Amino acid sequence: MKALLPALALILLAPTVSAAPPSPQALMATAAKLRDQALTGDNTAYATVESLTTEVGQRIAGSPAAKRAADWGVARMKALGFENVHIEPFPITAWSRGAESAEVVAPFPQKLSITGLGGSVPTPAGGVEAEAVIFPTYRALLDAPMGSLTGKIAVVTQAMIKFQGGDDYGTLNANRRAGPSEAAKRGAVAYLLRSLSTDDTRLPHTGFMNYAPDAPKIPAAALSTPDGALLDNMAKRGKPIRIRLLLYSSSFPAEGFTVSGEIKGREKPDEMLVIGGHLDSWDLGTGAIDDAAGIAITTAAAKLVADNGRPRRTIRVYMFGAEEIAASNIAFAAMHQAESAKMVVGAEADFGGDKVLRVNLPPGAAETTFGKDLADVLSPILIRPGPPALNAGDDFNNLKGVPFFGLRQDGNRYFDLHHSADDTLDKIDPAQLNHAVAAWAATLYMIAESDVDFRATMPK
Amino acid sequence: MKALLPALALILLAPTVSAAPPSPQALMATAAKLRDQALTGDNTAYATVESLTTEVGQRIAGSPAAKRAADWGVARMKALGFENVHIEPFPITAWSRGAESAEVVAPFPQKLSITGLGGSVPTPAGGVEAEAVIFPTYRALLDAPMGSLTGKIAVVTQAMIKFQGGDDYGTLNANRRAGPSEAAKRGAVAYLLRSLSTDDTRLPHTGFMNYAPDAPKIPAAALSTPDGALLDNMAKRGKPIRIRLLLYSSSFPAEGFTVSGEIKGREKPDEMLVIGGHLDSWDLGTGAIDDAAGIAITTAAAKLVADNGRPRRTIRVYMFGAEEIAASNIAFAAMHQAESAKMVVGAEADFGGDKVLRVNLPPGAAETTFGKDLADVLSPILIRPGPPALNAGDDFNNLKGVPFFGLRQDGNRYFDLHHSADDTLDKIDPAQLNHAVAAWAATLYMIAESDVDFRATMPK
Repeated sequence: MKALLPALALILLAPTVSAAPPSPQALMATAAKLRDQALTGDNTAYATVESLTTEVGQRIAGSPAAKRAADWGVARMKALGFENVHIEPFPITAWSRGAESAEVVAPFPQKLSITGLGGSVPTPAGGVEAEAVIFPTYRALLDAPMGSLTGKIAVVTQAMIKFQGGDDYGTLNANRRAGPSEAAKRGAVAYLLRSLSTDDTRLPHTGFMNYAPDAPKIPAAALSTPDGALLDNMAKRGKPIRIRLLLYSSSFPAEGFTVSGEIKGREKPDEMLVIGGHLDSWDLGTGAIDDAAGIAITTAAAKLVADNGRPRRTIRVYMFGAEEIAASNIAFAAMHQAESAKMVVGAEADFGGDKVLRVNLPPGAAETTFGKDLADVLSPILIRPGPPALNAGDDFNNLKGVPFFGLRQDGNRYFDLHHSADDTLDKIDPAQLNHAVAAWAATLYMIAESDVDFRATMPK
Repeated sequence: MKALLPALALILLAPTVSAAPPSPQALMATAAKLRDQALTGDNTAYATVESLTTEVGQRIAGSPAAKRAADWGVARMKALGFENVHIEPFPITAWSRGAESAEVVAPFPQKLSITGLGGSVPTPAGGVEAEAVIFPTYRALLDAPMGSLTGKIAVVTQAMIKFQGGDDYGTLNANRRAGPSEAAKRGAVAYLLRSLSTDDTRLPHTGFMNYAPDAPKIPAAALSTPDGALLDNMAKRGKPIRIRLLLYSSSFPAEGFTVSGEIKGREKPDEMLVIGGHLDSWDLGTGAIDDAAGIAITTAAAKLVADNGRPRRTIRVYMFGAEEIAASNIAFAAMHQAESAKMVVGAEADFGGDKVLRVNLPPGAAETTFGKDLADVLSPILIRPGPPALNAGDDFNNLKGVPFFGLRQDGNRYFDLHHSADDTLDKIDPAQLNHAVAAWAATLYMIAESDVDFRATMPK
């Protein structure tokens, strides 16, 4: 951020009447320049992912590593030139994995590759052993009558389909989130699902789950995709399958840490773009694509804008501290809803490190001159306008009344890696990461340097 | 094997003078017919892999599962119509994995994904913790002076290159086999290497190692490839890296089981083709590519030949019982060297389930009319003559005086999966497996039905 105006100059400028924004032509020219700088730049974003994954690694919320990550975040933001860098702590219920294992006991004794779902209760000390009922789809489980699974382990082996947009995660998410309680309502003593994964590695993918208030809490875990297929093949033999599951997980009160930093606006500091990624990760990988990449993209893009000179509006960047356990969104809204009127727009980068395919603006904005100008700036790097953005990522989903945008990335590889031990640095493609930074930098600049008002163009 | 002649007919035919082999044209026509039957056939080989991986799974030599695998092998061979099916037991020193873990203790605490090498001694009960010395190549370790690693953990992070023929496994094999003792000679207390893997999953790849008689026995394990890269990146920071390794492995005397079956020759039953794959696997995956595939290819090919009518010579198929720990080769030579003069040719399928690229005949044979005829039969399915076969797979490498052939498969994917938890059924491509069966069936038929004498055409 070498090009920032000295503080003295700001003081001299601030009391004067706000200057008009640049002409659309000038705005587009500078946005294109920042875009191209990112594509051929110094790989700042990659260095951020490398640093966080190497020096901290996994950083599940509530762990000692999560605190180290927050300290890392403060240092990183300061090193990149952000102002007003600080930690916002908030209370969470943390979850910790312990020893875990599963095996087919009969008729074909084999170990299974599993991992507990975030939030799962533990099994009894010796584990739980029971006959398994294999459901090829989640719907088949929901169709099972109440009481039909009494004393059984329910297993859903439905496979996830690879869509470029990651669509099937939405379709199948309830398998993981609600499956344990649906199985428990029918009498099951444990729940297994085939991982929400599009890969064929023998690494299970974890993720958060919620217990329904009206069902017993039963332990729940994910099978690797080959193990899901294995159980399907065993089930074809028609013999009863007995499974033993052991999960020594625990939940406990702890603190989450969201890191905040700003590029203060030179003309309209009280008009803010609020963006970010999440700092916490699951505990299996090193959280490279989920979500060191989002942290890296948003901080690098904001830095590129700042390096060009302080923008008219403020850009505030968050490293959210407990996305995976659905806690930083609640804390964020509680702390910042009051200043939502100042938020010009919000957006979170939380879909990996691959290239951007679509720019989704707030409803109504794509059809405006501003929306068309931004589309023209992004078109040369092969980005198309997408549907209106109705949300901005999990950490903003408790915030009301703020327009959102999204830069939708290519998700072909995302669910190969997501929430698994395979989420590591080597999965980051520096060229694609730079492409995402380019899209973010151009978009942030255009919004921060202009007077665009997304609330005004929203359909009522 | 529906087409086998009834026993009575055999008795009537046997005492007569041996019939001449078919004309080369007839031989080639039938070989081509068998080849095409395999390509479009009933997926017998795939069913064999599915059955072994589903009903037995991992079957490391000396484990209860290995005995189940031998029983499975007997039943499978009988079901496929083999004769004289029996188990040949032999003594082994078995190795069993226990709990295992590793972590960076400082300066950046992180868990590492590792797995013990086969044959490794355990660590002390609390594990071993020491400063790590990171060597980018195995040669750099060998260049380290004696005594320079005293009290340290030696780590070799050299990456494996993906060659279609799997060449780098030969180049880097000493890293795993001899590395522990080379490190121990220099004073190291433990040894880690980046897995001999061409994949980027966070699954470590195991494999056998040997201790040198003149070095202390130190525990040895393989890192996943992302963890090898992680340690490289940590090392760049220049701070001492401390690692803790825990391996609770054990070795014990046990029994290995090789399964043998035959298609008895109708004219020259004492002239044998000896082929096979290995029944044992490593303990991490379900041994689909290594080596259920080899078992499946060779038994399916022999069955195809038999289904066409009993061949002139005998085809004997082995399911070797302890390839991974280098024990069935010794037992096989001890039991069968005496009948090696009867062995027309030997060949083992132990390079996965993908398509065949080359046919390697015994030295001198490719230039004969027989060799050219076989090449013509295999050419339409895109197989080319390769270099002379100087060996026939690990289980034959203690056998002397037998000509060998090899049907060399595409190894592009092999070392992605080899010796890791990722070696599972879903990695088998039925179409490619059928291609390998086609190549084996045509080759076996041509050798078994002709009078070809590879010993006669070998250069002296």
